Amino acid sequence: MYEIGVVYRNVQRTEARVADALGALGSATTHEALGRVGVMKPYLRPIYPGTGVSGTAVTVLLQPGDNWMLHVAAEQIQPGDIVVAAVTADSTDGFFGDLLATSFKARGARALVIDGGCRDVKTLTEMGFPVWSRAVSARGTVKATLGSVNVPVVCAGVLVHPGDVIVADDDGVVCVPRSLAAAALAAAEKREQKEKEKREKLASGVLGLDMYEMREPLAAAGLRYVDR
Amino acid sequence: MYEIGVVYRNVQRTEARVADALGALGSATTHEALGRVGVMKPYLRPIYPGTGVSGTAVTVLLQPGDNWMLHVAAEQIQPGDIVVAAVTADSTDGFFGDLLATSFKARGARALVIDGGCRDVKTLTEMGFPVWSRAVSARGTVKATLGSVNVPVVCAGVLVHPGDVIVADDDGVVCVPRSLAAAALAAAEKREQKEKEKREKLASGVLGLDMYEMREPLAAAGLRYVDR
Amino acid sequence: MYEIGVVYRNVQRTEARVADALGALGSATTHEALGRVGVMKPYLRPIYPGTGVSGTAVTVLLQPGDNWMLHVAAEQIQPGDIVVAAVTADSTDGFFGDLLATSFKARGARALVIDGGCRDVKTLTEMGFPVWSRAVSARGTVKATLGSVNVPVVCAGVLVHPGDVIVADDDGVVCVPRSLAAAALAAAEKREQKEKEKREKLASGVLGLDMYEMREPLAAAGLRYVDR
Amino acid sequence: MYEIGVVYRNVQRTEARVADALGALGSATTHEALGRVGVMKPYLRPIYPGTGVSGTAVTVLLQPGDNWMLHVAAEQIQPGDIVVAAVTADSTDGFFGDLLATSFKARGARALVIDGGCRDVKTLTEMGFPVWSRAVSARGTVKATLGSVNVPVVCAGVLVHPGDVIVADDDGVVCVPRSLAAAALAAAEKREQKEKEKREKLASGVLGLDMYEMREPLAAAGLRYVDR
Amino acid sequence: MYEIGVVYRNVQRTEARVADALGALGSATTHEALGRVGVMKPYLRPIYPGTGVSGTAVTVLLQPGDNWMLHVAAEQIQPGDIVVAAVTADSTDGFFGDLLATSFKARGARALVIDGGCRDVKTLTEMGFPVWSRAVSARGTVKATLGSVNVPVVCAGVLVHPGDVIVADDDGVVCVPRSLAAAALAAAEKREQKEKEKREKLASGVLGLDMYEMREPLAAAGLRYVDR
Amino acid sequence: MYEIGVVYRNVQRTEARVADALGALGSATTHEALGRVGVMKPYLRPIYPGTGVSGTAVTVLLQPGDNWMLHVAAEQIQPGDIVVAAVTADSTDGFFGDLLATSFKARGARALVIDGGCRDVKTLTEMGFPVWSRAVSARGTVKATLGSVNVPVVCAGVLVHPGDVIVADDDGVVCVPRSLAAAALAAAEKREQKEKEKREKLASGVLGLDMYEMREPLAAAGLRYVDR
Repeated sequence: MYEIGVVYRNVQRTEARVADALGALGSATTHEALGRVGVMKPYLRPIYPGTGVSGTAVTVLLQPGDNWMLHVAAEQIQPGDIVVAAVTADSTDGFFGDLLATSFKARGARALVIDGGCRDVKTLTEMGFPVWSRAVSARGTVKATLGSVNVPVVCAGVLVHPGDVIVADDDGVVCVPRSLAAAALAAAEKREQKEKEKREKLASGVLGLDMYEMREPLAAAGLRYVDR
Repeated sequence: MYEIGVVYRNVQRTEARVADALGALGSATTHEALGRVGVMKPYLRPIYPGTGVSGTAVTVLLQPGDNWMLHVAAEQIQPGDIVVAAVTADSTDGFFGDLLATSFKARGARALVIDGGCRDVKTLTEMGFPVWSRAVSARGTVKATLGSVNVPVVCAGVLVHPGDVIVADDDGVVCVPRSLAAAALAAAEKREQKEKEKREKLASGVLGLDMYEMREPLAAAGLRYVDR
Repeated sequence: MYEIGVVYRNVQRTEARVADALGALGSATTHEALGRVGVMKPYLRPIYPGTGVSGTAVTVLLQPGDNWMLHVAAEQIQPGDIVVAAVTADSTDGFFGDLLATSFKARGARALVIDGGCRDVKTLTEMGFPVWSRAVSARGTVKATLGSVNVPVVCAGVLVHPGDVIVADDDGVVCVPRSLAAAALAAAEKREQKEKEKREKLASGVLGLDMYEMREPLAAAGLRYVDR
Repeated sequence: MYEIGVVYRNVQRTEARVADALGALGSATTHEALGRVGVMKPYLRPIYPGTGVSGTAVTVLLQPGDNWMLHVAAEQIQPGDIVVAAVTADSTDGFFGDLLATSFKARGARALVIDGGCRDVKTLTEMGFPVWSRAVSARGTVKATLGSVNVPVVCAGVLVHPGDVIVADDDGVVCVPRSLAAAALAAAEKREQKEKEKREKLASGVLGLDMYEMREPLAAAGLRYVDR
Repeated sequence: MYEIGVVYRNVQRTEARVADALGALGSATTHEALGRVGVMKPYLRPIYPGTGVSGTAVTVLLQPGDNWMLHVAAEQIQPGDIVVAAVTADSTDGFFGDLLATSFKARGARALVIDGGCRDVKTLTEMGFPVWSRAVSARGTVKATLGSVNVPVVCAGVLVHPGDVIVADDDGVVCVPRSLAAAALAAAEKREQKEKEKREKLASGVLGLDMYEMREPLAAAGLRYVDR
Repeated sequence: MYEIGVVYRNVQRTEARVADALGALGSATTHEALGRVGVMKPYLRPIYPGTGVSGTAVTVLLQPGDNWMLHVAAEQIQPGDIVVAAVTADSTDGFFGDLLATSFKARGARALVIDGGCRDVKTLTEMGFPVWSRAVSARGTVKATLGSVNVPVVCAGVLVHPGDVIVADDDGVVCVPRSLAAAALAAAEKREQKEKEKREKLASGVLGLDMYEMREPLAAAGLRYVDR
């Protein structure tokens, strides 16, 4: 996090199969499987609804109001990557627009997650290049100060290492550390299977109180029922 | 508001006919008819646009990061109800997702209004189960601490008693106390009728200045016109 | 900004051809052409996505929770205008709804930009009358205190004079001073032409690093590449 | 909460002895004794540090940017009261200054708690009249629109009835309903006694882990110790 | 506001006698005398309490995270000036610290008002150099991008021209346009005289209801008194 | 960051001499020496002004509204430590009060930095135990859910490892990674020496423009001077 002016090349990425499978399960299920950690702050929102992606992180550390390092990052993108951009101070400027998106897409990037602003959202929507950002702003940036590429960054409150898995959808963005990704996937798949069964029971009118056997612990905790 | 660990059953609800009719008039008209009160703070937003609902309140008091009481509340839902969930401290966690929505829907609930976060919004949108929330977040909750069901709660700045009417649409959420609902409906219907006539006049180019007879009071208040 | 209780009539507007052409280029390109200034704070958001408009400003200064002056402003609207409303203190109330929109539209207004709240957004969406606002709220306003029309106002951090050009789209709102509009248009058109060429190159896989000749200045600034 | 334009006189207040005793125990102890409820949102801050007060609530419902009802409330103040002012919409204007404070003090008020702004804070500090507010602002208000006095209000997220006990100090503001005040006092005094004993033990180096007998439940919950 | 890269010299300042006299009256009285306008947003706070100053504005337009122009501005300071710094995008970085304060003080500046962050607040407090800022932050800035000096700026929502009067104290910051300063002073002095008389009456127990003759207009507006 | 339910013991701390020396230089100088990184977000504020401390980090990961792990952390404190507490979701509850402070102080802790709320601030001020927090709140917490001690945490946007140096004063909080602390100290001392010389020159009236030799680069960047 403290290195400025460095680009790490050839970082090791989580296996594509694992990253893809976590994306299919979604951010909420993945985060639960991780032990209820790894969710970026909810001010990060998708620029258009209905999209879900996953991929491996190429990280970027930006200076506020300066998008120079996004151009540097483009060269480090491999197919299946998601670029994750942190900023050294809070900024809502439009760091990213349709030109960079064209370049990122040509390199194989699947999405951008940025703890700053984004612009050209209409064109990005038409291009189908999804972005999760903290703001949308027409205000552009300069190219004057160095940051870094592929160093660990803190994005929207979560530490991201290059090569970690990023899962992003309408519910937000989750980061799964590379070393935990396979285990998280196994846990998530188990969880998903159980949820399907529960959904059917609940749809048929069974109460969660009964299905989860909550009545006893609730009574033990002191819950009282009073008729009006 | 100060009772923790209690579930009130068999609460008296506003007549369904009144609750339904207020929903047809919408949140803005209803709030004006109430005397310009009862609107929840505008940080509550629908998870998808274009829906308007109304119903009778089942209230829930949650602890931050804990959705146990939503499971308890499910049993108290009757067809036509809207669940209104307050939290004892600010929290944006995803208290509610598609499993609870399946259960709520099976019980006849029309919507959830929650002064906290929501998740699984893509599935909820597909299910057509509307939620008004202060945030969307993949971050889940635990089931460890008691709250209450059907006690008076303060949700997004507004006091809600069980059985009150809730009107929610793209403009936000309004609560109409049960004792005032019939009178509010009568006033709202009168207002709505007038608005239709006004709309036609304004569309034809008549100025509000003339239609509302504002020129005299504006002059009396000291308004001056200056040509440039 | 300091005059309360005045309506200026017959203000001089930027030439329609210039205002229209800037709208076609969009807020981001226009702001860059102006020298990276003139963007309103990004908390102003469109009430529905996908619309872009431009026009000449009719300015309104409102008191918090009071929309009297919007009715006064309606009379000053000419076809091609965009109403820009500032408030003397932060307020999220719903100052504007479908009745005023009907009137504004009948007078030829293209949009409203308001540093306050808006309501009836479903109807406004159906009417196709776009609004950029800081909030959506069912809470209405009174008509009790004077403000002004066509005085200079500060809206979302930007000074707007009557007759300035307003460009608003999904990326936000930009104000172009009347005296700079023609020059800004010329600069924006030049910029737009260049962007098209760049987009094609980037889509073909050329890196911005090479296209913008950044490798040398990056190295001069001290950027290091390290293999992992 | 929904009555506008009414002043209730002769409201029943909590016994002064109870209100005073709760103030001596402070907001944190009182809130714990209530069952961890009743704390107003922490954006309410004292205008100067180091003061703690308690008293019985005279409630005021204000319109945004309008302090007319504070003048009306002055007449309803009895010695030992604390005025609690809510606003029907978020506002940071300076509703209260040294003139009103002079009047409130002359009537026997001990403090003001206001979900809005305050001004003249230097003079208020010199006068020793404490205020808990959400903002300090030189911006004044008008006297144009009715609110109410001594109706139930929601102030900073908490429901307050006239006559309830208000405890305010550097940690914030707590409201104790009149019907629960005596029981809360008894519970708070018991708690306070225990805290004194604990403080001595902890100061001598005894760990909370041992004093509270937490080691076993922590181990049961799965806590592991690892040496580095 | 739209000129970048310009320093205006020899700007005309409001007469010192007027600027000083407004300071003695304070921000709240000055703003009322101006017609209740000119107050900067209340997020601007003094870095230490108890100070009140006034002076003539030297304006600075900064780029986010860049304090180069504050160094340029120092040369334009004359004794009795207050530097007013706006930033082209929201930033909380520490643009200003004890070195710049030493220089500003040596040039005769009385204070800084900055719509950004400040640091070295302990030293500034010891030096007695007051700053009104939106944040305190240890994070420093670079010196890379041009802004302007002595152009009109929007600071915390208020338009400030060089030479305007700035009044800043515990209640916030007010800007008085140069052309209105003498009239504002006359109005403020008249207001201040009246307030003294009112204060004495209110201290003696006279109610504002009677002193301001509010009982009749309140009744006319429909206020009802109800005994409990 | 992703381990829940673990306490690491015997973590390696930065040398006390280095931690102490950085504290004497302060947060602003330290952060500059680090390369302008490591500053926590400026919403972290000291509960009382005028204190500066430094020490080695004992890290704690808390669940929202739950302070169990602070009790666990107490046992891991060594003289000279500063406890740094992160929370897995945004929370302003009062996690820390005078009882925990008594225990922390008895163990030799110098301060607490917490990305949550604090209470008992009057007593903490009297005790001289400084806390940097994001809020002050009377609202207490439960002891129900595990977090961790001495794992890497993200506190107010900055990654902190156990044993890192924390420098906290009126300007905010900076974290210096253990491996960089000695180098940062050397750089900071060099910087400090230069600042003293600069301060004397600036106090004598020398302009920064001349002292820093900025006139040429400003002219090269295009700065123009215009007389009015």
